[in-house]
Amino acid sequence: MGREVQTPEPVAIVENRDGAADMLLVCEHASNRFPETFGALGLSDDERRAHIAWDPGALGLARALSVQLDACLVHATVSRLIHDLNRPPHAQGAMPAKSEVFDVPGNAAITPQERLARTQAVYLPFHNALHAEIARRIALGRSPVIVTIHSFTPVYFGNKREVEFGVIHDADPTFALRVVEQARALTRLDTRLNEPYSAADSVTHTLRLQATPYGLDNVMLEVRNDLISHPQAENEMAHQLAPVLRAALSELQRGRHRSL
Amino acid sequence: MGREVQTPEPVAIVENRDGAADMLLVCEHASNRFPETFGALGLSDDERRAHIAWDPGALGLARALSVQLDACLVHATVSRLIHDLNRPPHAQGAMPAKSEVFDVPGNAAITPQERLARTQAVYLPFHNALHAEIARRIALGRSPVIVTIHSFTPVYFGNKREVEFGVIHDADPTFALRVVEQARALTRLDTRLNEPYSAADSVTHTLRLQATPYGLDNVMLEVRNDLISHPQAENEMAHQLAPVLRAALSELQRGRHRSL
Repeated sequence: MGREVQTPEPVAIVENRDGAADMLLVCEHASNRFPETFGALGLSDDERRAHIAWDPGALGLARALSVQLDACLVHATVSRLIHDLNRPPHAQGAMPAKSEVFDVPGNAAITPQERLARTQAVYLPFHNALHAEIARRIALGRSPVIVTIHSFTPVYFGNKREVEFGVIHDADPTFALRVVEQARALTRLDTRLNEPYSAADSVTHTLRLQATPYGLDNVMLEVRNDLISHPQAENEMAHQLAPVLRAALSELQRGRHRSL
Repeated sequence: MGREVQTPEPVAIVENRDGAADMLLVCEHASNRFPETFGALGLSDDERRAHIAWDPGALGLARALSVQLDACLVHATVSRLIHDLNRPPHAQGAMPAKSEVFDVPGNAAITPQERLARTQAVYLPFHNALHAEIARRIALGRSPVIVTIHSFTPVYFGNKREVEFGVIHDADPTFALRVVEQARALTRLDTRLNEPYSAADSVTHTLRLQATPYGLDNVMLEVRNDLISHPQAENEMAHQLAPVLRAALSELQRGRHRSL
């Protein structure tokens, strides 16, 4: 099946596996690492540090939330430009030739065999690892809420974005609506539903692949990356969002109880 | 994580991996093997040969279809009573304490750790293997229709079933409707939509887990097992159903072309 592909470290890392929270945090765009096997795709150092390669601040925020909520976190160790783990392998955006205003030369003339090699080396191991964590909890009788954690750039195609905290749902808005409600009650963040993206932009693949088949509640969170630009800011944001997620989850569980 | 679990042979077997058909056949209930690790669950030899342990005839039919259609086939090597691969790990029916009129003693007082061990040893490897085959095709630009192949008992809770060929869909009935249409045009089988089961009976887990997240067309086929009770009958049934599936697929593809 073409050339052999190996990455030197696991594509998925699981932290706080035995966390007590009924919540599983996922960070698909945690890293801007370009494994040697695939190379730098013709990008400059600056481009590989830019938001096109990863979601800056998202891993720090996710880790702080994992600690504060005592929740398991699964995060990736490979740049989204090698394989965007929140896109199916055949999607244009899984290995984009252009991201915002940046060309990605190494993705411009990608062969089917190269697409397959990245799918097998990056996409499948990451989603298998996440699936294993979800199946483990389900088998033990738990129903974790799946929360994916992302960041977005404050200026996109030259336009400034006002939204600070975006809450995005796929087919089932139940948990997202509770998160918005609690964020507005407990924080001063400019919180919006389905901004700066929505499921119509094909950004909910992980939720569809991993949460929906098991009927698990789920949500995608987007934080503007200038608000989490250094470790202290990531921690402070986690201090704002942990109570929001905790309250949303307990509202959800109370609601379920009442309806029994 | 409790006792170590090993099965002596792979849980999933892939045949005709490079088959040319835009169709992927799946047979979750192919085998009535009870690996030593899990034992016979307190069942007699007769019970382990009965329809509660597997779908008799389904593997033979699936293999003949794989050859006649030149389609890849993924089938399981472990009894559905150890872990029903067409049910999520937490479902009662994944490791049922009672199946039709039969008690399954080894499933009666199953601990959470035992449920987890079976999930990790049987459910996850099977679905990872199937997922890998699907992702491989998608990465290469193909869109396989997912077809699961089952058999059902002619007498259930004492009631005789008239239906011979059941065609079951999940949320999207597109392909199922074409299969029913072609079966009625090309065969004399008593063909019915969503009989003897439907998605409401929670029998479409594999379709939901593997096909729906990728937007792949899909269907579940059920053949009455007295019609495929020996190898010649399995082959003859495949000779009836292969043209039905081929015609349904080409109708589907023609429809897609027209709408472009």
